[in-house]
Amino acid sequence: MAGGVGARFWPYSRNSRPKQFLDFLGTGRSLLQMTYDRMIKLVPKENILIVTNKTYRDMVLEQLPLVTARQVLLEPARRNTAPCIAYAAARVYAANKNGVMVVVPSDHLITKEDEFVEAAAKGLDFVTNHDAILTLGITPSRPETGYGYIQAGQEVENGIRKVKTFTEKPNAELAKVFMESGEFYWNSGMFFWSVKTIRNAFRKFLPDTFAKFEMGHAFMGTDSEQAFIDEYFPSCQKISIDYGVMEHATNTHVLFGDFGWSDLGTWGSLHDVLPKDEDNNAKPKGKSLCYDSKGNIVVVPKGKIAVVQGLENYVVVDSDNALLICRMEEEQRIRQFVNDVSLMENGEEFI
Amino acid sequence: MAGGVGARFWPYSRNSRPKQFLDFLGTGRSLLQMTYDRMIKLVPKENILIVTNKTYRDMVLEQLPLVTARQVLLEPARRNTAPCIAYAAARVYAANKNGVMVVVPSDHLITKEDEFVEAAAKGLDFVTNHDAILTLGITPSRPETGYGYIQAGQEVENGIRKVKTFTEKPNAELAKVFMESGEFYWNSGMFFWSVKTIRNAFRKFLPDTFAKFEMGHAFMGTDSEQAFIDEYFPSCQKISIDYGVMEHATNTHVLFGDFGWSDLGTWGSLHDVLPKDEDNNAKPKGKSLCYDSKGNIVVVPKGKIAVVQGLENYVVVDSDNALLICRMEEEQRIRQFVNDVSLMENGEEFI
Repeated sequence: MAGGVGARFWPYSRNSRPKQFLDFLGTGRSLLQMTYDRMIKLVPKENILIVTNKTYRDMVLEQLPLVTARQVLLEPARRNTAPCIAYAAARVYAANKNGVMVVVPSDHLITKEDEFVEAAAKGLDFVTNHDAILTLGITPSRPETGYGYIQAGQEVENGIRKVKTFTEKPNAELAKVFMESGEFYWNSGMFFWSVKTIRNAFRKFLPDTFAKFEMGHAFMGTDSEQAFIDEYFPSCQKISIDYGVMEHATNTHVLFGDFGWSDLGTWGSLHDVLPKDEDNNAKPKGKSLCYDSKGNIVVVPKGKIAVVQGLENYVVVDSDNALLICRMEEEQRIRQFVNDVSLMENGEEFI
Repeated sequence: MAGGVGARFWPYSRNSRPKQFLDFLGTGRSLLQMTYDRMIKLVPKENILIVTNKTYRDMVLEQLPLVTARQVLLEPARRNTAPCIAYAAARVYAANKNGVMVVVPSDHLITKEDEFVEAAAKGLDFVTNHDAILTLGITPSRPETGYGYIQAGQEVENGIRKVKTFTEKPNAELAKVFMESGEFYWNSGMFFWSVKTIRNAFRKFLPDTFAKFEMGHAFMGTDSEQAFIDEYFPSCQKISIDYGVMEHATNTHVLFGDFGWSDLGTWGSLHDVLPKDEDNNAKPKGKSLCYDSKGNIVVVPKGKIAVVQGLENYVVVDSDNALLICRMEEEQRIRQFVNDVSLMENGEEFI
């Protein structure tokens, strides 16, 4: 899944260059490329599908030279994850009615790749043999209020447990209880299922979306596929797979582990995973000199220098034609700032 | 005088593009150009001399297209204001032994131009008729500790008074006493004298410098002038006109007024004179959106946007390959920061 816009990372991410296409960690590989590198350890590379927005087609093909145009599924409109997954499932089903799928966002970070690949192989194996929806759960390392939580029930086999409940972003108190209970895991948004299982789930919980892609079955993988998608995809209900399917399904399971995972949802979460200096300042990309400054993330382009004096717990991002300075604890307001900028005269130049 | 480097305005000013050449107020005219515009109201334009560093020659000629190369005096080394003025005086003396001079820095701001021109005309008239060194004093508007103060004595004529004392940057307590006394004026660094008078002063107080330029008299205004200057100027004592001459001379006078003057010595003083929004934020140049922010100066290039949240009394300057964020009350440390940057690997690219 590579269709998001990453507005929370403005001005580093832009409409024309969203989060998954950026080299967030200064490693020389974008998040999308890092995700691809990880998945080819698990899946034959010709079986990888990238679902993205039409406008990002060329960027995907440029960043992933081993991917062919036919492997890139193009959404003509943003409809959240459920239609995205229904489209991918339709394509897999057309190729192999007994196929199994692993679905991953392309803009997350996983630092413990071997642990991830091992767990994911186990997950694929499980859904090959069970009519089960399996999610990858992350052992919580802090009472995070920004994530969804999965409550695990009894073990089915080999570390895989039934899901009791899904809870969207809890408040701080509840998050603390969740964490201390040892029963709750972060919902990573990574899923395993057979096409049969996910088709049944769509048929049951999102029947309109299911019917659309049934109608398109004959076009999948043909030269008419894009025309069909352009016609019917925009009318799909805009809903996430979590709300649309996971919270209703009864055959959901969770496989949990510690994969050094972060959804990199905010500058704060990026700060958490980046290397930091002795004053807890993270300075990826260009050079930065910090004086009397603690707990900041300072991002300037390569070849630029930042001199920062007297800042604590700020996000400082200089990217192209925009500069953002914002308290880290206020970073959820960045979306609003971007909206304000977009309403200025010629504001679209900056977003 | 247009030879300074303006290190305190880094990163907006650079070694290659110092303060006087910059359009500080976003008016479309640099401080040098604004100074020129002011002086041609007072002095025939062919009589204006610009003393600058050799490396800035082309920039002067580009910014002042009405100035000929012969009017630009080129210092091969930085020697502070006394040698600069001795050189200009030598050139004026070679042209006219009875000449009078007005000497002004090219990187100050004067907003009340008519009042200035009127006072300066009076000043030129006074030094035409008296063997007097005359300085322009500024009625203090606050107990500023960053300026030199002139104590005025008895009136000689028409608002022009004898100088009793010069006091360099006083402490806060003394500055307050000075201001309340009504006897003290800020030393603006603008001077009037006849060449005869200033030559006598140099002969008496800086005899080595005087002797050098006496030796060069025959070269002034000829094709050999630059060779002479290149040879002898660097060996002049590095000293300001205030320390070298003004504090010793007995025939010093002061003409004071309110000219909307600022030496623009710091970002703070620039903040004082710029238009500000309702939260006291000054935002010259590019666009800026400020949230929960007060008393800042935010400078981004034209065509760039800054979004600033949660800053009070900061200097934010984004210019080319450098970004500075610094508490305004710590801005005297900018010189040190620039020095630290210069010591980094390839640091000279940034200064």
